[in-house]
Amino acid sequence: MKVIIAGMGSVGRGVAEMISKKGLGLMVTGIADSKSGIINNDGIDLGGVLEKKQKTGYCGDKKISAADVINKADYDVLVEVTPTNATTGEPGLGYIRLAMGRKKHVVTSNKGPIALAYKELKKLAAKNGVALRHEATVGGAIPIFHTIGQGLAGNEILAIFGVLNGTCNFILSRMSDEGLTYEQALLEAREMGYAEADPTYDVQGIDAAIKLVILANTIWGNGVTLNDVNRTGIDLLTPDALRLADDEDCTIRLIAEAIPKKGLLRVSPRIIEKNHPLVVEGTLNAITIQTDMAKEITLIGKGAGSIETASAIIGDLLFIRDRYVERS
Amino acid sequence: MKVIIAGMGSVGRGVAEMISKKGLGLMVTGIADSKSGIINNDGIDLGGVLEKKQKTGYCGDKKISAADVINKADYDVLVEVTPTNATTGEPGLGYIRLAMGRKKHVVTSNKGPIALAYKELKKLAAKNGVALRHEATVGGAIPIFHTIGQGLAGNEILAIFGVLNGTCNFILSRMSDEGLTYEQALLEAREMGYAEADPTYDVQGIDAAIKLVILANTIWGNGVTLNDVNRTGIDLLTPDALRLADDEDCTIRLIAEAIPKKGLLRVSPRIIEKNHPLVVEGTLNAITIQTDMAKEITLIGKGAGSIETASAIIGDLLFIRDRYVERS
Repeated sequence: MKVIIAGMGSVGRGVAEMISKKGLGLMVTGIADSKSGIINNDGIDLGGVLEKKQKTGYCGDKKISAADVINKADYDVLVEVTPTNATTGEPGLGYIRLAMGRKKHVVTSNKGPIALAYKELKKLAAKNGVALRHEATVGGAIPIFHTIGQGLAGNEILAIFGVLNGTCNFILSRMSDEGLTYEQALLEAREMGYAEADPTYDVQGIDAAIKLVILANTIWGNGVTLNDVNRTGIDLLTPDALRLADDEDCTIRLIAEAIPKKGLLRVSPRIIEKNHPLVVEGTLNAITIQTDMAKEITLIGKGAGSIETASAIIGDLLFIRDRYVERS
Repeated sequence: MKVIIAGMGSVGRGVAEMISKKGLGLMVTGIADSKSGIINNDGIDLGGVLEKKQKTGYCGDKKISAADVINKADYDVLVEVTPTNATTGEPGLGYIRLAMGRKKHVVTSNKGPIALAYKELKKLAAKNGVALRHEATVGGAIPIFHTIGQGLAGNEILAIFGVLNGTCNFILSRMSDEGLTYEQALLEAREMGYAEADPTYDVQGIDAAIKLVILANTIWGNGVTLNDVNRTGIDLLTPDALRLADDEDCTIRLIAEAIPKKGLLRVSPRIIEKNHPLVVEGTLNAITIQTDMAKEITLIGKGAGSIETASAIIGDLLFIRDRYVERS
């Protein structure tokens, strides 16, 4: 199966590295970053491109754009791993539309296009008879959409509860375990590389809310947007609140919840029993799926990381190979 | 897709009930219990059969055997849910061979045939071009084999750690949380219906070891047997041991471990940090999969129950429908 990769940040490089190392019956025929591109329909030398990218900052030829690669290369699947823009979805959104217009399958880790235009993109995929997979958009390495779509096939999904932001979970874990203030824990998160210079996107629950929107739209197709999420961040939490929770064998976690029958779509700090499966430590993510038959299933794993995210993308690629490409 | 069900215990009834309620594009054309059978190639009235079974103890005609149903009905998949016999695998093993000989797919919840004859059955399935799925044999509702086979496709599985026996986990939870002795906790487990009159199979780790054998053979194809498992039960644990663990913010759980590179295949009570994802309460099951790309992924869910197990079986049925039956 032939694959092109748009985006050569840490995720794109992780995917290229894993395909180079493992093979997996995948051949990469095109690669683009924001400034250059390369096409080779007989298969690109991935080691060479990764080395060039590291040395020069370019993966290919400056005269070849990402759109050129998407429009001209010979491939079955576009791996779209450009940076997330939660307002416009670009450039990923445009790339996905281009590829689907050419009747190519799409795998993406990009939360922007999926949070903003899931319904439109699913329609476009159906019209062109191709797959759109986005396992890597929520929960990093956790195969949440495989679990909902295949592992729990036949179940009605009643609700979702998730710890979807590793930065917040790290800060809350440190406040709870060590009695740190929010500011102290945030500083530590920055020092460890878990928090950005401007942590707003994480600590105000925006990132978790975007992931909740993606989960809700994928599971229930209910067309919700970021504005529909009742959202409270963790930046006003005091060590006192965590001490009070601790007195009851509880702790506080930033929980994203969707319960369609109650019209509930919320991201907020919640008091939760310490031995609840959702209470995970550090930067881990956790998602509980409530269903009619299996009851509660919880998945825990790394919510970020280059190779961890590549794992989710490769799972999607092999799913497409087994369901679509081998069949035709 | 046409389905027959061999076995009308709590799992078989759960499957029939869920297909009756949900449809799911599945038609049941044959049902057998240990004493009777029914065939209707136009679709059995499941409500009627479930009522008859409850009132009379028979699901069908005493002149029709399970082998008759398997040999004569028109179907795509046998759902084999007869009781587990860990020594001979019968009668399930024979039923599975019969159905595969007729080029029928098989879904089973029966640990006996899978623990004893996985290699032979996989060969037979390949020879006949059919699927053998056994999601329900390990972890109840937890879709562990879907996760390993599809969700984590492309990953190398390095090790498995599991809390695979709900009875033991309930007893250890009670000893840890309430300071009960083993005998007190076992009594409570019996009163709640979580432990058999003879609890040997559970508390000596035999059930967990069988599930570990199934996991290891499915993942690595290494042909291990129950005799290869280094096994210690929980029946000699004292409250003192749990108190000592508690002093270090740890607890004790019966952990099944498989690490092929170390030649390790073991079921034993292990000291484990309380905030480790594998530390679940009561009768829950939990499984941690260690891989090269996704790193550690943990799944938690109900390890038993009629409808929970039916969930796993229906997931397998829909997998077969999507991968095999729709394709042909």
